[in-house]
Amino acid sequence: MTKTEDLPSRRSRRPVSTTTLVEKAPRSHGYRRLINPFSPLRIYSDEEVERLHAAALSVLEKWGIRVMHAGARRYLAMAGALVDETTEMVRIDRTIVEQALLTVPRVVELRARNPQRSVFVGERHVAFAPVAAAPNVTDSLRGRRPGSMSDFCDFVRLAQSFDVIHLLGPSVEPQDVSVDVRHLEMTNAQVSLSDKVPWIFCRGKEAVQDSFDMVRMVHGLDEAAFSEHAYSYTVVNTNSPRQLDLLMADGVMQFASAGQLVIVTPFTLAGAMAPVSLSGALTLAHAEALATIALSQIIKPGAPVAYGGFTSNVDMKSGSPAFGTPEYVKACFGAGQLARRVGVPFRSSCVNASNAADEQAIYESQMSLWGAMLGGCNILLHGAGWLEGGLTASYEKFILDIEMLQMMAEVLQPVSASADEIALDAIAEVSPGGHFFACAHTLQRYKSAFYPPLISDWHNFGAWKEAGARTASSRATDLWQSTLDQFSAPELDVAIREQLDEYVSSRRAMRGG
Amino acid sequence: MTKTEDLPSRRSRRPVSTTTLVEKAPRSHGYRRLINPFSPLRIYSDEEVERLHAAALSVLEKWGIRVMHAGARRYLAMAGALVDETTEMVRIDRTIVEQALLTVPRVVELRARNPQRSVFVGERHVAFAPVAAAPNVTDSLRGRRPGSMSDFCDFVRLAQSFDVIHLLGPSVEPQDVSVDVRHLEMTNAQVSLSDKVPWIFCRGKEAVQDSFDMVRMVHGLDEAAFSEHAYSYTVVNTNSPRQLDLLMADGVMQFASAGQLVIVTPFTLAGAMAPVSLSGALTLAHAEALATIALSQIIKPGAPVAYGGFTSNVDMKSGSPAFGTPEYVKACFGAGQLARRVGVPFRSSCVNASNAADEQAIYESQMSLWGAMLGGCNILLHGAGWLEGGLTASYEKFILDIEMLQMMAEVLQPVSASADEIALDAIAEVSPGGHFFACAHTLQRYKSAFYPPLISDWHNFGAWKEAGARTASSRATDLWQSTLDQFSAPELDVAIREQLDEYVSSRRAMRGG
Repeated sequence: MTKTEDLPSRRSRRPVSTTTLVEKAPRSHGYRRLINPFSPLRIYSDEEVERLHAAALSVLEKWGIRVMHAGARRYLAMAGALVDETTEMVRIDRTIVEQALLTVPRVVELRARNPQRSVFVGERHVAFAPVAAAPNVTDSLRGRRPGSMSDFCDFVRLAQSFDVIHLLGPSVEPQDVSVDVRHLEMTNAQVSLSDKVPWIFCRGKEAVQDSFDMVRMVHGLDEAAFSEHAYSYTVVNTNSPRQLDLLMADGVMQFASAGQLVIVTPFTLAGAMAPVSLSGALTLAHAEALATIALSQIIKPGAPVAYGGFTSNVDMKSGSPAFGTPEYVKACFGAGQLARRVGVPFRSSCVNASNAADEQAIYESQMSLWGAMLGGCNILLHGAGWLEGGLTASYEKFILDIEMLQMMAEVLQPVSASADEIALDAIAEVSPGGHFFACAHTLQRYKSAFYPPLISDWHNFGAWKEAGARTASSRATDLWQSTLDQFSAPELDVAIREQLDEYVSSRRAMRGG
Repeated sequence: MTKTEDLPSRRSRRPVSTTTLVEKAPRSHGYRRLINPFSPLRIYSDEEVERLHAAALSVLEKWGIRVMHAGARRYLAMAGALVDETTEMVRIDRTIVEQALLTVPRVVELRARNPQRSVFVGERHVAFAPVAAAPNVTDSLRGRRPGSMSDFCDFVRLAQSFDVIHLLGPSVEPQDVSVDVRHLEMTNAQVSLSDKVPWIFCRGKEAVQDSFDMVRMVHGLDEAAFSEHAYSYTVVNTNSPRQLDLLMADGVMQFASAGQLVIVTPFTLAGAMAPVSLSGALTLAHAEALATIALSQIIKPGAPVAYGGFTSNVDMKSGSPAFGTPEYVKACFGAGQLARRVGVPFRSSCVNASNAADEQAIYESQMSLWGAMLGGCNILLHGAGWLEGGLTASYEKFILDIEMLQMMAEVLQPVSASADEIALDAIAEVSPGGHFFACAHTLQRYKSAFYPPLISDWHNFGAWKEAGARTASSRATDLWQSTLDQFSAPELDVAIREQLDEYVSSRRAMRGG
């Protein structure tokens, strides 16, 4: 046999039996809880991390952050911060920040109404969430369009259908629902169509309170019991540079008071809202995160909070944001180092700037995903369906991302080096140049040995062409359709169902929908 | 700046100009030499690595490897191995392997005819090479077809055109050239169209000798001087399980004698030519690699050699090979650990099993690429253009991969945490809620601050749609065409040119073309 480099077709052999190996692999896609076994990558030495941390503290001490919420300023002042009510600038001494960091929980349990869906955030735990807050939605059948309630529900159904998605997200903005009552419909859909932990937007005190009430209802808890554990989560973005607005400050305070998880995420695009240098952008983000995390702990020491890394760069030709770039990846590593420095669970994202669920969308997303995982992220937002820098949620991209998340979840599974796995007997049993298809070691394991893909097609070229030469994106269309067709919502107690419906009706009347 | 690789073009910054952000970014894509600053990831503890290593040694001692080359058996016997001439089985004691490993160079310099194209393989150095040995070729204009000499030359031109490709590869099999003289045309094209280090196939002693002669000619070296440094490289695949065939054994001996780099790569598909368990497949691969590396050092102590990791899994439903799977990634990490255990430079690959340059091709390639880089690979084969499990070289995929390799090369560049980069002055200068576009710190840096992509499109959806809504794969078509259109071969001394032509003519006559 002529040997050339790595030509699989010359080496691949048909299975020995036509019956044994054709059965579906039963390996489960049940990636309900994930642990990242790998040491995070570092772009900074320990000394450099200290330098960035010290610089961020000095930003807060010397120049401060603008806090547009009078109540938040009062709390910060009571903790010792220097407040200028004219400019709304708050200067925060490092001792205040250091005191606050002492009470941040290292790990947060997010409790779902189905306890098997509860997940942990922090240390080596990893949880994945779908795209959030896209105003538009797209799929290959209906094209790109403004988000609707129907799409919102479909994305909740998709998120519920795959175990590798651990948390819900407001994937699509339901623009066909009045803003006054939108939160009611969004929360209702999440708690009705899914038994995973819901997301709540910080869009005003009343809307948050309504949503808390509905989540409490589902868990059958009064306010005091509810506030003892996290049953929901949100993201608070600072208005970088150095600004915390009214709604966001309200959100921090309300979530902290209620003991629900707040992910504090400065959105620091290097070259736009942040210095063009990576270390500058990360320093600014760190300062903003520290100030906001401090506020949460001043409100309620021990309130669950996460440190969001969302530093990327802009296209300096156009000013457009870019995602999944090399700079983005390095920012993930650096932000992870800073989050671990202050002992706060770390949030990252799986993002891209492509306009289609195409090759660019995939390589940028993969870069983001690896950046997040290697940066030691504990909670990955926008994990499935994000497109166009977050302006669109894509049904096809959602499925492509599920495949990628599942593959990543498999990478995290440990490898055994037991004698049985080293398999010296099997190696001895097979003659030189022979094959392992028929040996007992293989037959005992083959059904669950490997990850069975959802949409990857490993047929040869002829068979693939014969079957229509479909790309992965096109095959993804089939899977989101069949997933939605086969969907059935998890059971919900009839009494709770009625209680929720009544609540939504009464609040609709009150809120003006 | 920092401890880094010399990329002088990256250091220079244009003077600040009054024109704004519309000019092209001048950041260079000159990734001629790469250093991987990250610690490799581990799937095994040190103790587990020892266990696999010991198991592999016991495979060689107890059951041995079939060596189908009588001369190679003689050399191994002279070194103390136990040879059964009837079965061609060679049992190799661990002391022989351990002795051989002592002389393997930790780093190999691959010398190119343009010294700026010379690269190092080993330790933290990383070099990228294009797809090798695809029988077919495809592009979106001409479709899929058997490889030709014209395609071979085009892939050499493409490989020459991007600095991130450090070595040449026999990307396409030129099936329109008679096999007797194919090596002459392939080597001639490589040394004529490029000044990077060429690949030589192990397809018989005479063919290898002809190719060595031609590479010597280009460098103006006699055989003795040639053998003092590596000017070319090859891959030798074992016929897993436990078999080294005639051509491959000839290749190891001939390359080792001539001091040229041999990458020893067992092709161990778990579940087919290797145990279905990852630790079993890696143990078998390790045993085969050790035996073959030992042969190289017995022939010539200090001969340059690399440890090839090429363990993946099959689709257990069809027996087809799969690449870029989670198992593939973990095999990269594990093989890297074993290669470092024995102190041999580590080779990996950027591979996928997709039939099109589509989303699957990209996510599988990204998985492979990250697996390779995080596994600590020193030489990445099949880095650009590989499709269909290696059966096809794709022009579009080549360009998509170049973008991905360049992005990875950027990830490897160090980040500075100097005061200038932390940029406290810039942070202080910009008011809360303001932007950094206009500040001096930005203006001094923006032109070279970020990686400028080749084909990523960051326009907004409207602009992108207006421009034809083209996917990344479609944009890649433009770039391979323009790259080939603009190609000019590096200069080659006229006397050498004539010498090469004469050599090819005379050998053509002799070899029967």
